[in-house]
Amino acid sequence: MFVVCVHVHIKPEHRDAFLAVTLENARQTLQEPGNLRFDVLEQADDRTQFLLYEVYRDEAGMKAHKGTAHYARWAAVVPNFSAEPRWSTRYTPMFPKDAGQWSAKG
Amino acid sequence: MFVVCVHVHIKPEHRDAFLAVTLENARQTLQEPGNLRFDVLEQADDRTQFLLYEVYRDEAGMKAHKGTAHYARWAAVVPNFSAEPRWSTRYTPMFPKDAGQWSAKG
Repeated sequence: MFVVCVHVHIKPEHRDAFLAVTLENARQTLQEPGNLRFDVLEQADDRTQFLLYEVYRDEAGMKAHKGTAHYARWAAVVPNFSAEPRWSTRYTPMFPKDAGQWSAKG
Repeated sequence: MFVVCVHVHIKPEHRDAFLAVTLENARQTLQEPGNLRFDVLEQADDRTQFLLYEVYRDEAGMKAHKGTAHYARWAAVVPNFSAEPRWSTRYTPMFPKDAGQWSAKG
């Protein structure tokens, strides 16, 4: 299991379009068997900064995500909405230990 | 509901001590009624960088957390283990919308 934090800095005029494609990508990603959660967060003091908090069961789960049509659609348009290239950091979970506590599946 | 990302950069020689107090704080925080999750994450490519992903029901929930003995113990010792002051960013959740999908409670 691992977590990827993706930071996206958008142009304010593209906020609605960015949110529409990102929420659709989040909903569809959460249905992938290899994904446990896909939180979409807006920075409280700067509405042009977003954090995607993505949790995958394993490397194969993330590779499968990168191969989906919904990811391809998202990745194709987000550069048009961005003020700078997005950046990401990968993390190893230390707590909680139970995978069930990580799931946001309905 | 809101999310706080706390970044802690530790001195490598204090890693075990930092993890011990942080995991204890995480376990106890998750039992607070106002807290929904408290993920402890180690950066994959730098084991001195940690992210605490904390989710609270509301402002009162976070204030209650700051008033607990376990938070006070954690906050008192972590500066001794840190390479620089910790920093944090607050976020507004956009997805998922159901609070149940945010909970890591057992």
